[in-house]
Order: sequence, then C-alpha cells, then structure tokens
Amino acid sequence: MRIAVYPGSFDPVTNGHLDIILRAAELFDRVIVAVSCNPKKKPLFTIEERVEILREVLAPYKNVEVGSFEGLTVNFCRKVGARALIRGLRAISDFEREFQMALTNKKLMPELETVFLMAKAEYSFLSSSMVKELAYYGGCVDQFVPPLVEKKLREKYR
Amino acid sequence: MRIAVYPGSFDPVTNGHLDIILRAAELFDRVIVAVSCNPKKKPLFTIEERVEILREVLAPYKNVEVGSFEGLTVNFCRKVGARALIRGLRAISDFEREFQMALTNKKLMPELETVFLMAKAEYSFLSSSMVKELAYYGGCVDQFVPPLVEKKLREKYR
Amino acid sequence: MRIAVYPGSFDPVTNGHLDIILRAAELFDRVIVAVSCNPKKKPLFTIEERVEILREVLAPYKNVEVGSFEGLTVNFCRKVGARALIRGLRAISDFEREFQMALTNKKLMPELETVFLMAKAEYSFLSSSMVKELAYYGGCVDQFVPPLVEKKLREKYR
Amino acid sequence: MRIAVYPGSFDPVTNGHLDIILRAAELFDRVIVAVSCNPKKKPLFTIEERVEILREVLAPYKNVEVGSFEGLTVNFCRKVGARALIRGLRAISDFEREFQMALTNKKLMPELETVFLMAKAEYSFLSSSMVKELAYYGGCVDQFVPPLVEKKLREKYR
Amino acid sequence: MRIAVYPGSFDPVTNGHLDIILRAAELFDRVIVAVSCNPKKKPLFTIEERVEILREVLAPYKNVEVGSFEGLTVNFCRKVGARALIRGLRAISDFEREFQMALTNKKLMPELETVFLMAKAEYSFLSSSMVKELAYYGGCVDQFVPPLVEKKLREKYR
Amino acid sequence: MRIAVYPGSFDPVTNGHLDIILRAAELFDRVIVAVSCNPKKKPLFTIEERVEILREVLAPYKNVEVGSFEGLTVNFCRKVGARALIRGLRAISDFEREFQMALTNKKLMPELETVFLMAKAEYSFLSSSMVKELAYYGGCVDQFVPPLVEKKLREKYR
Repeated sequence: MRIAVYPGSFDPVTNGHLDIILRAAELFDRVIVAVSCNPKKKPLFTIEERVEILREVLAPYKNVEVGSFEGLTVNFCRKVGARALIRGLRAISDFEREFQMALTNKKLMPELETVFLMAKAEYSFLSSSMVKELAYYGGCVDQFVPPLVEKKLREKYR
Repeated sequence: MRIAVYPGSFDPVTNGHLDIILRAAELFDRVIVAVSCNPKKKPLFTIEERVEILREVLAPYKNVEVGSFEGLTVNFCRKVGARALIRGLRAISDFEREFQMALTNKKLMPELETVFLMAKAEYSFLSSSMVKELAYYGGCVDQFVPPLVEKKLREKYR
Repeated sequence: MRIAVYPGSFDPVTNGHLDIILRAAELFDRVIVAVSCNPKKKPLFTIEERVEILREVLAPYKNVEVGSFEGLTVNFCRKVGARALIRGLRAISDFEREFQMALTNKKLMPELETVFLMAKAEYSFLSSSMVKELAYYGGCVDQFVPPLVEKKLREKYR
Repeated sequence: MRIAVYPGSFDPVTNGHLDIILRAAELFDRVIVAVSCNPKKKPLFTIEERVEILREVLAPYKNVEVGSFEGLTVNFCRKVGARALIRGLRAISDFEREFQMALTNKKLMPELETVFLMAKAEYSFLSSSMVKELAYYGGCVDQFVPPLVEKKLREKYR
Repeated sequence: MRIAVYPGSFDPVTNGHLDIILRAAELFDRVIVAVSCNPKKKPLFTIEERVEILREVLAPYKNVEVGSFEGLTVNFCRKVGARALIRGLRAISDFEREFQMALTNKKLMPELETVFLMAKAEYSFLSSSMVKELAYYGGCVDQFVPPLVEKKLREKYR
Repeated sequence: MRIAVYPGSFDPVTNGHLDIILRAAELFDRVIVAVSCNPKKKPLFTIEERVEILREVLAPYKNVEVGSFEGLTVNFCRKVGARALIRGLRAISDFEREFQMALTNKKLMPELETVFLMAKAEYSFLSSSMVKELAYYGGCVDQFVPPLVEKKLREKYR
C-alpha cells in the first residue's frame, strides 16, 4: 500500500488545498493530510479546529485521513510509513522555499519522494493568508473556501 | 473621466514611486495616490505624515490627488469610481505577491483593471525599506528620495 | 484622445489576446491592434490573413482597429500618435524578454508608456504556438480560440 | 493498476533522466518511458536508437517499459491507460514551458495528473543538449550519462 | 593587495558558507569574513560566539580573517580598504534581495565590486535557518555544518 | 598572477560588455576577452572582425587582451592558465543557462572559479541581439555601443 502525506498549516484549508488533496487521492492508496503545529507561528485557528474542519470537509473521501504533527515533516512521514510527500505547485508559488524543503528532505529521508502536483490555473492566486486578509476586512470568500470554512471565518472575525 | 488609483504604504515615498505616479498621470484623467493604513504594520511615518509629504511633493501635478484608506483596496477603488489600479513593476519585484493581488482583485471587482507600469531601470533596486535602512545608518539618500523626504528622514533618525 | 497600440504576431489570435484587447478598450479611447510582420519568421497565416481574422473577430468593438507594420514597434507607435503600448502579462510569461523590450522602447521613445495588463488566470497557459501544435496533431482547440480561428486552423492543417 | 508515462526526447538519456525514472518506478505500478518523435526536430539519435538505448539501460527494472509516440502526449497516455504524467523538476528548469504543458494537458485530459518529481541537486544542471555539446568538443561525459550512452556518443562524434 | 569582504550573519556558519570562503581565498590576496551585527534581529548565537566559531573553523587558512561590524556594509568595506564584496549565489537564492543590495552598494561605493561566486550544487538548498530548524527538532545536521557548529547547536538546543 | 577569461560571442560588443570588462580589469592581474567561434551559429560579424573591434576598443587598457577560441571554454581557460571565468549578471539574464554552464564547468574544471559581476542597472536590458535588431531597422544605437561598433553596424546594414 502506497501512503502519501500532504503537510501544511491549513489555517484555514482553501479550495486550492482541496483540489490537491483529491488529485493525490487518485494517485495513492491512502492520503494523510497532516496539519503542522508550529509553536513559533500564531495561527488564526487552533490545531484542533483545523483538524476538525479538515475532517468534516474530507469526510466523503474514504482513502483520505487527517492527522497533526509537531517537529520535522520527515519524522511524521517515517512514523506513518509514507512513500510520498505531496506539495501543491502553483504558477505563483514560493519555489525557492519548496525546492529547499524538497532537497533537504531528500537528504534526511532519501526513500521519501516529494511529489509536486499542480493546482488548477484558477486557484493559482489562492492562499490561506489572502483568504484571511479578505475575511478580516469583510470581503466575500465563498469562491475561495468550502462553506464550512466561510462560516468559521465569519465567526472568528465577527 | 477615467480615474486610476495608485495604492501603497509610501513609508516614505521614493523617486521610484514618483516616476510611476507621473507616468500614470499622463495616461489617466485623474490619479489618486492612496496611502494604505495597515493596523498590523508599524510604519516609520504616521498615515498623516505620509499623506502630507505626498501632498507637498505632488502639489505641482494638477490631476494627481492624495488620499488614504483602511481595508481592501478594491473597496477604496469602488468608492472613488476608479477604473484602473496602478502598480509599479520593476525588474526586481515581488511578482508572486503582485500577481496574487491582481488576480484576487480581478475576482473581487472584475471591472477594475490592474495596470502595471515599468519604473526606469535606474530605480529598479529602489524600495522604501532600503531607503530607511540607509538613512538609519547615516547613509546619504538624496539620490533616492525627494529633498523633503530626505529632511524628514533626518529628523526621524536624528 | 489617448491611443494605445497592442502589437503582436497574432499567428493566430487566441482568447487570451482577445481578453487583453477588450480590457485595453475600456482604458483607452482608441486601441490599435498591430500585427507585426517579421521577415525572419515563417508564420502559419500570412500577414493579410492575420489582419483579416482580427478585423472580423474585433468588428463589434467600435474603438478597436487593426493594422500591420514592419520594423520597430516604436516607429509604428510614433506614426499613429500612440501614448501607450499594451502588453499582456501572464503568470507564465517571458518576463526577461518583456522587460528588455519595455526598457529598450523607453530609451527609444520616452513619451510612450508600456502598459502591462494581466490576462485572466485561466488564460495563463495559452499561447499561439501551443494552439498551433494542438491543432497540428488534431487536438480540439475550441476552448482556446474564437470559432473563426478554429475553422481557419482546420483548413490549414487539413 | 496505476500506470505513469514519462515522456521526453531522450536524445540521449542522461543520469538525470534515470534518476527520475527510478523514483517514478517506486511510486507507480508500471512506468512507461515514452520517446517522443518530433518531425520538426533533428535529433542526434534516431527514434529507434533512443528506444534501444533506453531498453538496454532500463532492462533491470521490471515495472519499467519503453515505448515511442508521435503527436500529442495526452493521446499516448489515453491509449496506454495512464493515470499520471511524470515530469522531472530541477532547480534549473524551464518552468514556464512545464507549467504551460501541464495546464494545457489538464484541459485536454482532466483525469491525467501531471506529477513533478525533483531530481537530485547534483543533476540540476544536467541536460541532453549540454551532454551533446560536451561530447561534440571531445569533453568527458562519463559523470553525466550511463556507459552505453558514452560509447554511443563517441561513435556518433568520431 | 586585493582585499575582499564576505559579509553575513553566519548564525551559524554552514558548509555552504565555507565553500564560498575557500573559493574567495583563491581569488583574492586577503578575505575578511565580516559578521554583521543587526540590532533588529534575534540571532541564536551572539556576535562574539559567531566570530569565535568562524575563527576556529577558518584557522587553517592564512589569508582569511574574521571581523564584525554594525551598520552599512559599504562603510566596513571602506574602512578595511576592500575592493570586492563577495556574495554566494545558489540556484536557490533570494535574487531580488541580492540584486537590490548589489545595485544599492554600487550607488553608495562605486569602486567596490560585488562578486558573486556559485556554491556547489549540493549546497544549493543549504541555509542557516534551515540548519537551525533541523537542529531544533533534533534532526542530524552533520552533513550541513562543520563538527564544531554541530556541537554548539546541540549545546544551544539541549 | 591571477588571470581571468571573459568569454562571449561579442557579435558585436556592447557598452554592457565593456562595463563588465573594465570591472574585471580592476579585480584581476590580466583579463583575456575570449571571442567564441561557434560553427553552428551565423554571426553578423566574422570572428576576425569581432576580435579586431574588441582590440581597438580595448586598446587603452593595459591588462586586457583579446583572443578567440573554438570548442569548450574550459579548454581555453586551461590553456591560458586562467583562475577565473567572468560572467556578467543582469537583473534581466538567462539565469538558468548561466547556472547550467557554471555548474557544468565546475564539474569539468574544479579549480576554475566562475565569477559573476553585475552590470550597471542602466545596462540591464542591453543585449547584442537587441542592438542588431535596432540597427537592422535603422534605429539609433549610439547609447548602447561604442562609436566604432555603431559605424560597423551602419556599414553592415547599409
């Protein structure tokens, strides 16, 4: 069985993330969406909220699970027996950061393959921070996130 | 009448910004330089100081005005009836951020056109933060900003 | 009256080009689509065919005209009294080439402003050469070009 | 069974290509290396030579096959029932071209996933054309290609 | 005598930095590694620790010295009579920042030449912040830094 | 004595090239400008003309010489005992190609250092091919090349 891990902050999950997750679910037997807990960042949603939102949104997909981790991504991948690490690639991405992580992870865990999937063109501008900024100023985000996330954002910024 | 908005922090305005403003003033009937007030950032100059400096520096140009706003740029553009949003493009720019903003704004306000103008090559390295860093360490900034800004920077960092 | 020139090979015109032309038509009083005749390149459509296709496709737009030129773009712009040169900017563009041309043109004709407009995200991958390659191998191009161009491509590659 | 296609010119295959092929072979049940036959290009090795070299070099890998095709890559993928299209991503790549192809293919065959794998850092500079240029001028290429390819290059450029 | 300055935070020095230093030492009569003291950043190692580590690691190289400075790099270069400013260039670099600094420094001190040297491909992903993140989470960093730095990192994060 | 080689087509030499050559002449004891003879390209000026133009233009600089070569650049560097290979870096460069060459040359001749110098911002758009295109269409090139080159271009395109 081939397992893939899709790590990220998911603060909150966007339609762009969901697009990548569903693509990965077609390619691998099992996909674990892994919410990273970075003690240095101040997220809008707690780690528990982010996991819960993802679980609800991803409930219909049988080979997709949600987990969380602190520390190095490769350690989480080792623990769950992952063969692949999924990253979304957008025409508008931080390539340098992506490459640095991929090459570092290759050094740390050579048997783990970083697999870049490409988001749809219409999601190429989408990011969690942009969605939060929009929601903060009362902009409408329903084209960018699932309905549950829109509701949660409204609650946070009320 | 075609109105264009040129938004930014202008903390402080540089010769590169002025170059873009004067180019835009040739292309549009009215250009509104819009100082954004971001409550999360700590600017060197207050919003009032930045507006005042811009008003003095831009006084000779009849179809250029200065305003300020908080919140989404597209909301300001709607309020003033702008048809275009001006952005300066330098060989050395943060394209990803620019593209993300332009594509997001296109979703939020399809009738607003983001118009990229290109700064002169000799301004391609110029940024407000670089000017502040130079001035902080006592470097000479008179090639990079108008005389009024140089004076104000000296006062701040005295 | 502010005149803008949108130069290109248009071999053939794509939906991405049309998107840019209609945006420019909102910003300027008159837009001249200028088909460049490069004696060194071997186009699929003759210069006459390309002008004719553009004229038909752009007939509904009253402030848009079609012309052709050989030689330096700035010379054509001078002749027609253009104030702006329109270029489409895609997340996927040849920036280097665009910048080089814009900076060169600024040296050659300082009063002409290069204005970059951004194509819709869904056109960011679109190019004339890709469309021709698809059509050559019998792929369906109706999502990428106007119906007239699809028909002409079928005739060429029959 | 999940099938992946890895298309390319392979004129000739390099150690960088082999690195990507072996990574793909870990992720998919079957990998088909597909030599593209582009009638417009003049390759150094004929399509038959390229297929033969690949077959010999890849003989030890049981789930890797070699084929060839002319025309659109997506048509070949459809014919063999591929779910994934493999592309190597190097820190030094032609991203624009890669993105354009991936987004175009997504339009033409939405159920085919383009999967980008990242070559080892030490292969980031490696390309078939560089290898040919080196060999042409008598440079040593044994760090860049398998021994069989080195031998074939020496025969070609004798 | 031609003197070159190689400025940086070196928090801590990596094998990538050392690679660049030794290359510079072949090209110039004297190389001064200059640890910058930025009062706005919170480094892991104090300026004294960073200088001390560099001195120990670089002791074998006769034409390499270590110093420190606060303020503008060009002022330090003037003081020591440097003709060149060394910067490492990686396939994965922050080009925009590098270009901005180089062009600014050229304005401030035209007789100082910024010289970019290219790190080995296998160091292209290496950065001090990545090394610290790894060490913080207990990852092994011995492929990335000299043994002394590994020991110091273990002490810091014990 | 430290020798640097600055290779290129110089078809023809531009003010941007001269800027780089004079910078290199300050950093090295001897600079050899090496005109590459590529049998696959069709240059405007013959190899002899290009060498002659460079010799005339560079006559005032005592530690600068002009030579020519065919084949691998590293072989020429070995023959003349060069320690450094000079490359000009512009904000608008073909980085990928530059990186590929630098990393390849590092593999072929590890003791040769590729040294990137940065052209002035005002030359960032300048290239030999752009100059030729301008001259071909009768544009004025006197801001871009030395007077001798302008004269030679006029003769060629008369």
